[in-house]
Amino acid sequence: MTASPLLVVGSIAFDSVDTPQASRENVIGGSGVFCSYAASYFTQVQLVGVVGDDWPAEFRQVLASRPIDLAGLKVEQGKRTFRWHGRYMPNMNDRETLDVQLNVFGEFQPVVPETFRDARFVFLANSLPEVQCKVLSQVRDPRFVMADTMDLWIVEHRLNLLKVLKQIHGLVLNDEEARLLTGDAHVVRAGRAILEMGPRMVVVKKGEHGTLFFTQDQTFAMPAYPTAALVDPTGAGDSFAGGVMGFLASRGNVDDHLLREAIAYGTIVASFNVEDFSLDRMRRIERPDIESRLSQFREMLRI
Amino acid sequence: MTASPLLVVGSIAFDSVDTPQASRENVIGGSGVFCSYAASYFTQVQLVGVVGDDWPAEFRQVLASRPIDLAGLKVEQGKRTFRWHGRYMPNMNDRETLDVQLNVFGEFQPVVPETFRDARFVFLANSLPEVQCKVLSQVRDPRFVMADTMDLWIVEHRLNLLKVLKQIHGLVLNDEEARLLTGDAHVVRAGRAILEMGPRMVVVKKGEHGTLFFTQDQTFAMPAYPTAALVDPTGAGDSFAGGVMGFLASRGNVDDHLLREAIAYGTIVASFNVEDFSLDRMRRIERPDIESRLSQFREMLRI
Repeated sequence: MTASPLLVVGSIAFDSVDTPQASRENVIGGSGVFCSYAASYFTQVQLVGVVGDDWPAEFRQVLASRPIDLAGLKVEQGKRTFRWHGRYMPNMNDRETLDVQLNVFGEFQPVVPETFRDARFVFLANSLPEVQCKVLSQVRDPRFVMADTMDLWIVEHRLNLLKVLKQIHGLVLNDEEARLLTGDAHVVRAGRAILEMGPRMVVVKKGEHGTLFFTQDQTFAMPAYPTAALVDPTGAGDSFAGGVMGFLASRGNVDDHLLREAIAYGTIVASFNVEDFSLDRMRRIERPDIESRLSQFREMLRI
Repeated sequence: MTASPLLVVGSIAFDSVDTPQASRENVIGGSGVFCSYAASYFTQVQLVGVVGDDWPAEFRQVLASRPIDLAGLKVEQGKRTFRWHGRYMPNMNDRETLDVQLNVFGEFQPVVPETFRDARFVFLANSLPEVQCKVLSQVRDPRFVMADTMDLWIVEHRLNLLKVLKQIHGLVLNDEEARLLTGDAHVVRAGRAILEMGPRMVVVKKGEHGTLFFTQDQTFAMPAYPTAALVDPTGAGDSFAGGVMGFLASRGNVDDHLLREAIAYGTIVASFNVEDFSLDRMRRIERPDIESRLSQFREMLRI
């Protein structure tokens, strides 16, 4: 199998984040950003997204400095970029959204550039199921498509979401969403029930508690890397997914063993991501830092 | 190092349990019971506890059928055994206590029989810190003492609990208790902070989310075994601790590597325990069942 690029479709945002210790305003964020940056340690990334003309050149440069192809980054003149403002509770796991301004992301109709349409590995970050479907219809022969989703679509766009589930190979969602989607409060049963809805792999993110993941043959659990240096959890789930998909694309193949390795890489990338605001920690690491922490993690789990 | 017996001091109870699916009344329970039974797969157990004369011969026989020495089981004539009644929420993780009748356990002054006083491995299940101290004063030369505790003692008997922490080698507690004891909402930091209070190993139980554990040199995380057959979580923490301490006693030694293996054994024993009410699932397994599931778990965590 040969390495494949990874097509990422997701949001690009200005984030404002309050934690009990500190705050940041208008820093670079968004699912597409965290996911692309994380995946770029493993493979070439093709990003499809939209920003307004308030998106600064320096933010573009943060992405362009990595192997991330920005041919699919649309700039809407005279409009504003998606903005999100959230606040974390003292436990740093629960958060409340203080403000959302969808702006250009609200009417996002992703166009996949011709040069990206042969992508074999695709990650559809959280967006309207209809939008996810439209992206898929533009990709000629995807080999492995993973999608994220959220509570709002599960409740209010359920039929469209169920259609998406028939077209993708992997679904990533958090534990509350898995319960909501299946009506089963027990996450292990819920994860297995989602396999019946279409995807052949289901990844349930539990934040600081790690991950459960499910294939036809097996149920797996992996803890989070226990970093003491937690600063800002924003983007943890997206950088996790980016690490998982970037690694799988770099191998050009997916099986149970590769998925387990991919989940471990995603776990490690996410553990770096939460050690500072925005992409600040990620911008200070390279692949060897990931490998070094992964070795430690592997040793930690060797019984 | 040679195998050592394990001295267990804890409660012996009639449990009544309501789950969203089913209920059981007056079944065998209590921390001392779950812990002893779990440890008995690994080593000889010496149980110290108290019951009333309502404690049926068949319950005694459940314990006596295992390598559990009942010389320290005191029967108080004319009095009643500890009773607990709890109800689980639909998520099967949170529960409320509907009724507690301490009965003989309320005035429990454990007397360690002469034949148990040379124990080198000791598990002090959750009880008043003063009571835990009194037990310790009866053991001549313990090599490794692990204790459990609870929110009530952390808040209302803090000074005595801090005294206990100076005398033990390991503390096991849940994540909420770790936050409460340290005032730090981030469990990884909280766990490390507890090491400063005395014990050289801290084990933080997170229920279905597994375990974090801490030694001077390292921080570890281990997921729970993802069983889909969850029936009743009662006793999970105590059977976990029993598996951990039973294994360590069987090796007669404690180091970082053995602790990791012990935590894995505890995790597996607890995963069986929750698959039925009371000791019902445990009574149907033997050591090879534990080894077989452990192999699967080990493979699951091999990255």
